Amino acid sequence: MSLRFEHETLGQRVRFASGGAAHAVREEVTRLGAARVMVIAAPAETALAKQISGALPVVLVHDEVAMHVPVPVAERARAAAAEHDVDAIVCVGGGSTTGLAKAIALTSGVPIIAVPTTYAGSEATNVWGLTEGARKTTGVDPRVLPHAVVYDAALTLSLPVGLSVASGLNALAHCVDSMWAPRTDPIDAALAAEGIRALASGLPQVVDDPEGLPGREEALYGAYLSAVAFASAGSGLHHKICHVLGGMYNLPHAPTHAVVLPHVLALNGPAAPAAADRIARAFGSDTAIEGLQALRRRLDAPRALRDYGLHEAQIPAAVEAILSVVPENNPAAVAAGDLQRLLHDAWEGADPR
Amino acid sequence: MSLRFEHETLGQRVRFASGGAAHAVREEVTRLGAARVMVIAAPAETALAKQISGALPVVLVHDEVAMHVPVPVAERARAAAAEHDVDAIVCVGGGSTTGLAKAIALTSGVPIIAVPTTYAGSEATNVWGLTEGARKTTGVDPRVLPHAVVYDAALTLSLPVGLSVASGLNALAHCVDSMWAPRTDPIDAALAAEGIRALASGLPQVVDDPEGLPGREEALYGAYLSAVAFASAGSGLHHKICHVLGGMYNLPHAPTHAVVLPHVLALNGPAAPAAADRIARAFGSDTAIEGLQALRRRLDAPRALRDYGLHEAQIPAAVEAILSVVPENNPAAVAAGDLQRLLHDAWEGADPR
Repeated sequence: MSLRFEHETLGQRVRFASGGAAHAVREEVTRLGAARVMVIAAPAETALAKQISGALPVVLVHDEVAMHVPVPVAERARAAAAEHDVDAIVCVGGGSTTGLAKAIALTSGVPIIAVPTTYAGSEATNVWGLTEGARKTTGVDPRVLPHAVVYDAALTLSLPVGLSVASGLNALAHCVDSMWAPRTDPIDAALAAEGIRALASGLPQVVDDPEGLPGREEALYGAYLSAVAFASAGSGLHHKICHVLGGMYNLPHAPTHAVVLPHVLALNGPAAPAAADRIARAFGSDTAIEGLQALRRRLDAPRALRDYGLHEAQIPAAVEAILSVVPENNPAAVAAGDLQRLLHDAWEGADPR
Repeated sequence: MSLRFEHETLGQRVRFASGGAAHAVREEVTRLGAARVMVIAAPAETALAKQISGALPVVLVHDEVAMHVPVPVAERARAAAAEHDVDAIVCVGGGSTTGLAKAIALTSGVPIIAVPTTYAGSEATNVWGLTEGARKTTGVDPRVLPHAVVYDAALTLSLPVGLSVASGLNALAHCVDSMWAPRTDPIDAALAAEGIRALASGLPQVVDDPEGLPGREEALYGAYLSAVAFASAGSGLHHKICHVLGGMYNLPHAPTHAVVLPHVLALNGPAAPAAADRIARAFGSDTAIEGLQALRRRLDAPRALRDYGLHEAQIPAAVEAILSVVPENNPAAVAAGDLQRLLHDAWEGADPR
């Protein structure tokens, strides 16, 4: 083993405070010395945001939130923030809401306190994204990393179980793929392993007791770790495959990840024994694939891409597109035949091999 | 389990670059856009520092370094930095050298690039310390956290094996104690577990092959993680005990830690089964104590405090002093009798129980 790597730790305050978001957010606003708070929340979360921000010095509540942060939406939010001379942003919601807060921070430097209500993970990264028409631009900037994140599992109780599972399996895919992604390092792998442990423990509890907090807390914690690991490690083979499938055939994000993951693990695991062993231990299982499959059975996870709109005839074009984006340092050598087999298995819902 | 905690991640660039310190430091200086570099290294490390800084825009080389950073030493270094209008500090050395760089950064905000040559760990924390006579002042400030750390295991080859082992076991004690320290959280525990794994793998290799890099790399990596976990989690029972013994009887730091650790683990482990299980897994062992003891045997670690200057008659006073500083949330209840037995066992080198 040669231990050569570069890792950037991102400085932020991370709080897990089930049922205590309002109190924790108030403390973080005080700690910042902020006196003019902008609250961002989509209409669906407005009531929630009101509860959380009741005791804050709010000068502006903004509810125009849109997926992928269209530039005009960002511009209007920036103008409102400037007009009200805000000195902190509290964003309550999922990835689109956090993304809008980041768009404001990117040009103004106003610090963000993020209160996530989903497992999106954007709150733990310094990545921003904006869309102009169909064109998406992303970048990395230290100003968009939220200063503090307040995780309150009680806020995720309204996430339906099915969505929680799909989103949790997406987070799990981030963890597994982080084990061999292009920029991975031992720190990423350690955090990803802890994320796998937490998600594998939390998600079945969410299914068994949707109203209970402990499972929601662990799943949220695992989702946080998955974002930290993935942001540092970059996209591995799994994400390249899912990205191609989503882009070419508009397959739904979360189920695609859930179906493809075991097949990638079966392909890469034997070529990355240390990673596979670590994944197995995180699952508390003898092998990585057994651990993942047992969890998937427990969660009744999606099995076949044909159930989500992929046609068998579309596989060859996907294989070709994926071949050109396979990460150079992927542990297993990947030929067209491997991808053809992998996608066909994922399409029909066969066991991974 | 209720998952409530506050964790502060500290943002810095961390590089492991065996044999490549000069190149990595140059990249970090360029990344900062620095043009007036101050190099700090004690006389023993001056030649090393020269090699590392050969291609940098150095305006000042400072070699007055002293243990615990006495205020007059800090003042002279600050004055020199100001006089030369430096815009970056590169410090090459152990804890005292990093500490001096921090003293300058504390008042000036000049960013630090740290190049550690020991397992001290100061480079991974935002803690500073200064001494005025016998009085030590410490504090926490974001400005003293090095902007980047360059770990080059080749620079630790000159650390004698005995010192490497003692210092590595001290780092191991930080990891173990982080599992139940006052401010510990799951992130600290995950990083500490990874630190235990790395130290338990690296230190025996250092003993077997003192000139080899792989063991040195893993030990250095484990020491980094131990510093991150410990800075966040705070001092647990183990560190309270060692601090009292060191302060009252001037026992040597590293051997004291090495002797006391298994006894604290034996006391706390049964009351903290999740932590003990995690420690066991990190050692790759059936139980935490077996893992630690096997490593200690392998490293021929210190066994008895009487070999390091503790007298049996000094135990009762130590017990009394320790009783008043036992952390409130220590997993095991700790009575005078427990400490009496623990210290007596540690004094005579008995097996932990």
